[in-house]
Amino acid sequence: MGLPSAGFSVTVRLKIQNKPGNFLKIVSEIAEKEASTAEVVLLYSDFNYNIRDITINCRSEVHSRRVVAALKNLPNIELLEWRDDTFEMHRAGKLEVRGRTLLTTTDELSRAYTPGVARVCKQIVKSPADVFNYTIKSNSVAVVTDGSAVLGLGNIGPEAALPVMEGKAVLFKQFAGINAFPICLKTQDSEKIIEIIKEISPVFGGINLEDISAPRCFEIENRLRGELDIPVFHDDQHGTAIVVLAGLYNALKIVDKKLENIKIVVNGFGAGGVACTRMLLNAGAKNIIPCDSVGIVYRGRKERMNPVKEELIQLTNPDNIKGSVADALKGADAFIGVSRPGAITRDMVASMNKNPIVFALANPDPEILPDQISDIARVIATGRSDYANQVNNVLCFPGLFRGALKARAYDITAAMKVAAATAIAECVTPDELHENYIIPSVFKAEIAKKVAEAVERAAIQDGVARTKAAR
Amino acid sequence: MGLPSAGFSVTVRLKIQNKPGNFLKIVSEIAEKEASTAEVVLLYSDFNYNIRDITINCRSEVHSRRVVAALKNLPNIELLEWRDDTFEMHRAGKLEVRGRTLLTTTDELSRAYTPGVARVCKQIVKSPADVFNYTIKSNSVAVVTDGSAVLGLGNIGPEAALPVMEGKAVLFKQFAGINAFPICLKTQDSEKIIEIIKEISPVFGGINLEDISAPRCFEIENRLRGELDIPVFHDDQHGTAIVVLAGLYNALKIVDKKLENIKIVVNGFGAGGVACTRMLLNAGAKNIIPCDSVGIVYRGRKERMNPVKEELIQLTNPDNIKGSVADALKGADAFIGVSRPGAITRDMVASMNKNPIVFALANPDPEILPDQISDIARVIATGRSDYANQVNNVLCFPGLFRGALKARAYDITAAMKVAAATAIAECVTPDELHENYIIPSVFKAEIAKKVAEAVERAAIQDGVARTKAAR
Repeated sequence: MGLPSAGFSVTVRLKIQNKPGNFLKIVSEIAEKEASTAEVVLLYSDFNYNIRDITINCRSEVHSRRVVAALKNLPNIELLEWRDDTFEMHRAGKLEVRGRTLLTTTDELSRAYTPGVARVCKQIVKSPADVFNYTIKSNSVAVVTDGSAVLGLGNIGPEAALPVMEGKAVLFKQFAGINAFPICLKTQDSEKIIEIIKEISPVFGGINLEDISAPRCFEIENRLRGELDIPVFHDDQHGTAIVVLAGLYNALKIVDKKLENIKIVVNGFGAGGVACTRMLLNAGAKNIIPCDSVGIVYRGRKERMNPVKEELIQLTNPDNIKGSVADALKGADAFIGVSRPGAITRDMVASMNKNPIVFALANPDPEILPDQISDIARVIATGRSDYANQVNNVLCFPGLFRGALKARAYDITAAMKVAAATAIAECVTPDELHENYIIPSVFKAEIAKKVAEAVERAAIQDGVARTKAAR
Repeated sequence: MGLPSAGFSVTVRLKIQNKPGNFLKIVSEIAEKEASTAEVVLLYSDFNYNIRDITINCRSEVHSRRVVAALKNLPNIELLEWRDDTFEMHRAGKLEVRGRTLLTTTDELSRAYTPGVARVCKQIVKSPADVFNYTIKSNSVAVVTDGSAVLGLGNIGPEAALPVMEGKAVLFKQFAGINAFPICLKTQDSEKIIEIIKEISPVFGGINLEDISAPRCFEIENRLRGELDIPVFHDDQHGTAIVVLAGLYNALKIVDKKLENIKIVVNGFGAGGVACTRMLLNAGAKNIIPCDSVGIVYRGRKERMNPVKEELIQLTNPDNIKGSVADALKGADAFIGVSRPGAITRDMVASMNKNPIVFALANPDPEILPDQISDIARVIATGRSDYANQVNNVLCFPGLFRGALKARAYDITAAMKVAAATAIAECVTPDELHENYIIPSVFKAEIAKKVAEAVERAAIQDGVARTKAAR
């Protein structure tokens, strides 16, 4: 069930008899029910009673309802009302669209709309590149999904996917000032998705593909990268891979090893595993052993191969070893799991080289729980917020797109991705660096800015920046 | 050229020798160049000199450049810098997308994004109608164009159309709190446009079609109204028609006539003329004479007919009269022009019935200039902001969609449109009503609210509101 989380919090409004010990009773009851007391606000107080709003983090929806019921039954305490904070936050949606300036006079209206706006239209007709100067395209990203692979929920469709895309758009704005808008498509036909994204592209400076199932996500991204002149980025693949590389860079500083020299097992060959493998290759890794559900992938294997595996196996598994993931892990320096809960055991980790690095990223339940290996693994990362070293895409996509948009890039290249990973890694200072802090906190203010600068520089160096000439 | 307008304003920053008469010189020069002094801001002042920002409304871009050049040549005055206010306002676009609440803690992040957001997704899977409760769909409109008929600029394409769509989105927010987002399509193929709008519809509570050329706009709107379960509204047609009807209602109060009894000439049978004709019929007009470029449309005419004209001529021109627009206007009570500059003459207006009502809506140059007929026409309206009685769609679309969204309407019906027109008309109080004030100012605060209430009521009465059951 995991620890109590704010994602499952409720806020209760209680009328409490003003007698010593009554508040204690509430806090005790919450603790006894294994929930956590978060915010406590005193709304009213007099000689007879207090009214308080108490926010309680729980482990699940069922758990939260049980906690509310328990509080309702306490003597001398009246439950006035309660709300589920997550649903409350989502009421009427999380996103808003508004003017950057308020129009309060006829003169302002004449500039923002007719007749003034016609001049800006004519300017863009005359000089098409000015669409980047005078419209939202300068700073906008479409967050596009077909709802086919949303979080761990699977194929839930475009409407149910919308809260995730809105959340993503909120994060784009909050962390990088980017105007992102959700586009949730009713179709799951790759050709149609490609066509629609191309047709709606005039408004956007970049396309963030989100929660589209493999293998369609590969084709959609590849085709669009070739056919559009704005960056197209499938965050589930590359966002994860970039943060993994950032974490690995810092883990290697702790164990004092070099990426070129280490043996890395990548377990899971879906969208995430493929992207991590490519990313590690681009960053200079020489000995990657890819594994999938039937074991080590090797040249000549016939079982469960596909074009992507055939391509990548030419660049990995240098000694063409065979066997299971357990065989792969013997003497390995790092494990990167993007597979399934319980995919590896404590014994396998024990068989790794000295100072094992274990990234168990299956979400919400990792390949192995950190608690099981904390004494034998040197550095552990997961995809979860309730353990140290969370591999969180929020560290990457806002700054990455900010940099790409600033460069008015045509594309997001491998070098731009590596630059983003390096910048994220460097946001952990040498003083801060620690087994339990290889990945910076998402609330560290400078991350997006640092990432953006590095990505913009890389875009210019790679020749994909429209702004290059101006420098 | 028209009067100086804020749409063509420049702001100059001048360093002025601090001597009596120097500021006068500037103001004189501006007036002499036939420009208007708008805002004047004193930025700095000492014994030797002042620095001022002066905003100057001009008649055209060329005119504004000439004014700047003239000021540059004035003695004792230094032009420090100048900017074109319209382009300045458009820099980086006019629109922004952002979270409705700021996420500043890990707890808030856990609710807005993973893991909390997954609960909201699951709720929408379980109860699809909840997409209206917990997402932006509750209050969002797509402003969709293909850039084929933008303002008076013609087929300028999706990128150049974007500033207009952004402006529209700003107005949606400012006047009705609606989150509108521009969708500018690269295709002008009706089938593709229909398909794309259907595929992107999950995110939106309504579709505002904008600046799509006739006759494609008719088919696109009709098909989408039939195939989508959210309101689809082509503003160029119906927005104009609704405000025309509102203005006509008030004009008829002034001349003390009834809509059922008057003879109305509608000149121009494109998108606007067709919509006005339908609107007037829905409102109860009995004697409408439609005219087009070859004259009066009548049953049996062979020239330049099309299915829409064939349909509407069955409901109009009751005596099946023939001839020119001049013939049509003899004895007419009202003229509604959505045609071309100079389409009617002073003599034609003189031949109308007592107290002629003339709506000359061709934009920017009307069918006849108000100055030419102000002594013989009782009420005159145009599409321009520099004359009294501007027929401005901003009076309609924000409130109309607000009402439709509040009702969670499936459609926008004829009765909802008539209700909007009535509500707009009623925003001019009996005290205010005057030949030069039949249409309320767009900045009158209550308009959108009044329109929304009327439209929501009509939606419920017409049985197209999802919220009906709740009442």
